[in-house]
Amino acid sequence: MASLRDVARRAGVSVSTASKVLNGRMAHQHFGPDCIARIREAATALRYTPNYLARSLASRRADSVGLLMGPGSMSANDFWGEVLWGLGEGLSATGQHLVTLSSRDGPEHLALAHRFLQDGRIDGLVLLSFDERLVLPASLFKARRPVVLLGCAHRSAPTVAVDDEAGVAAAVRHLAELGHRRIAWYGPGDDEDSSCARRQKACRRAAREAGLRLDERLFSWRPALGDRVRSRSQRRQIASVCVACRAQADLGSGATGIVCYDDLVAFGLYAAAAERGLRIPHDLSVVGFDDIHAEVVWPPLTTVSHMLRAVGQRAATLLQELIEDPTLREAYAGRRELLQPELVIRGSTAPPREPAG
Amino acid sequence: MASLRDVARRAGVSVSTASKVLNGRMAHQHFGPDCIARIREAATALRYTPNYLARSLASRRADSVGLLMGPGSMSANDFWGEVLWGLGEGLSATGQHLVTLSSRDGPEHLALAHRFLQDGRIDGLVLLSFDERLVLPASLFKARRPVVLLGCAHRSAPTVAVDDEAGVAAAVRHLAELGHRRIAWYGPGDDEDSSCARRQKACRRAAREAGLRLDERLFSWRPALGDRVRSRSQRRQIASVCVACRAQADLGSGATGIVCYDDLVAFGLYAAAAERGLRIPHDLSVVGFDDIHAEVVWPPLTTVSHMLRAVGQRAATLLQELIEDPTLREAYAGRRELLQPELVIRGSTAPPREPAG
Repeated sequence: MASLRDVARRAGVSVSTASKVLNGRMAHQHFGPDCIARIREAATALRYTPNYLARSLASRRADSVGLLMGPGSMSANDFWGEVLWGLGEGLSATGQHLVTLSSRDGPEHLALAHRFLQDGRIDGLVLLSFDERLVLPASLFKARRPVVLLGCAHRSAPTVAVDDEAGVAAAVRHLAELGHRRIAWYGPGDDEDSSCARRQKACRRAAREAGLRLDERLFSWRPALGDRVRSRSQRRQIASVCVACRAQADLGSGATGIVCYDDLVAFGLYAAAAERGLRIPHDLSVVGFDDIHAEVVWPPLTTVSHMLRAVGQRAATLLQELIEDPTLREAYAGRRELLQPELVIRGSTAPPREPAG
Repeated sequence: MASLRDVARRAGVSVSTASKVLNGRMAHQHFGPDCIARIREAATALRYTPNYLARSLASRRADSVGLLMGPGSMSANDFWGEVLWGLGEGLSATGQHLVTLSSRDGPEHLALAHRFLQDGRIDGLVLLSFDERLVLPASLFKARRPVVLLGCAHRSAPTVAVDDEAGVAAAVRHLAELGHRRIAWYGPGDDEDSSCARRQKACRRAAREAGLRLDERLFSWRPALGDRVRSRSQRRQIASVCVACRAQADLGSGATGIVCYDDLVAFGLYAAAAERGLRIPHDLSVVGFDDIHAEVVWPPLTTVSHMLRAVGQRAATLLQELIEDPTLREAYAGRRELLQPELVIRGSTAPPREPAG
């Protein structure tokens, strides 16, 4: 295999010049077009392959962007695929590679990301965590390379998220437009997770604006979230919801439409309804939030899309801007970009039955 | 920040010696323990942080293993999370980082993986593709660094897969043990995908061995797999199965237990059964294959686990062996390791009802 030395000799330049032209960036600012052409021709003729590590040392770029699955994202790995896809699409125009850092959970996660940023193995980092209460160490944002956050927040970096209040409001309006007059909210009653309280409040406001009567049904499922085994955790969440739904004596007798905190709550309602012989949407309309598994159940679930692909794309774009122009970091710090979610109407919602009596 | 030169000066050694001790591997084979200790103490005192790129140049190791989502895996991104997790667990003991290469689809995928392997950005590659017919270029296996395959095969590298014939046989035995005497196979009738034909044959053999009568119901869903949008593709697959199931006049009147090619087929059957007022498992037992969404439906699906986490772990171990000892590559080439799947019994199977008359 031809070495850099061979290329330099053939082109009649020094090894250092050949290296800067072949491995560095903006060689045209330092060398004439003739010189650059001569070196490139020599490299082609000799089938010289630049060494990645040497090139990175010269350019100080890894041409890679990291994705860290942070604490709180391990139990939600159904979400990964879509976010990964969106990031990949966003980066494809820039020629950057996407590098997902180790899927191990725990505090060493953040240390690893910090090291990759400091070492220049990645040019920037996207940190994904579904734990809104996550406290990120300030040191992470002191690396020379930028960070963009998904699902969590810090005053030193921008966040991309979905406007879930708008999503819940769209779900409520959809039920109102179908003719429902009394609806219910089903969600976890755990105040610590801000997304629960936020969506619940949004439901309350939207119901008031639409002139609907709202029942609020809260239950606890937090214990299940400590379980890292995804399927078991899902199972337990659905089981919690079933238990909670069975305890609701008015399921199907009061509200005719139900807005759920997320799709798992909706699946719990599907199960509770099946056990009671209630048909969805004939006896009960149900709307979820996430759009992850919504199409494997019957009837397919009407739900608010979490827009994970769009979120990934936007994160890639933001990160690229910060990599290209480090002076933007200050302006972008603490910025919260909210994407508008979309209500995907499927088979679980319909006009309410005529009142029985 | 302290440089390598500072460390060398403080320890009284040459820069080259300090570099080999701090950045290389197996320094103890070349230098005495006193020398190594002196250099490490100097580095600690000066808070020297080794530069990753320089260290990699010295050790010729990236301490990273790549995962490539190959052609045919993009429409199945529900599978990613589990495989990623298993790989992460398998690598955690070795200190290797897992790096997932760009989620872009298309032929540039393989070229990117080849380049990463050649450049030494990764020490080895795991290639995941659910397209068994995928023809991999021989050049991929000529890189100096090893490849392990998941879901596809090539004579130059080892493959890790699940023994799906054993899985289907376990599903059939389960129905026989519950007392079913007449069962049906529901699967795609597309001969080109070897997994369809293989599982169908395994079902036929197991039914014969258990003395069960078997109906075989085939339909086509291949058109849907060309669609890269996961959820649409899923929806269409389920819709195809529903259409196919509606066309089966004997659904629920002949066979009392159904073995499905995969979980999506099972969900299609759930839908068809709901439309006809048949209850699962009261009127009909259903077994799936995959264990991806099996717990979000009601009743939760009895299914054969694809063992994706175990597959990921085993791939990590194999790759590590090949990285540590390149002479194993010849012995491992073309090897097919089959993991034993597990039948996960949930709520969709029960003894058959007493015959109506």
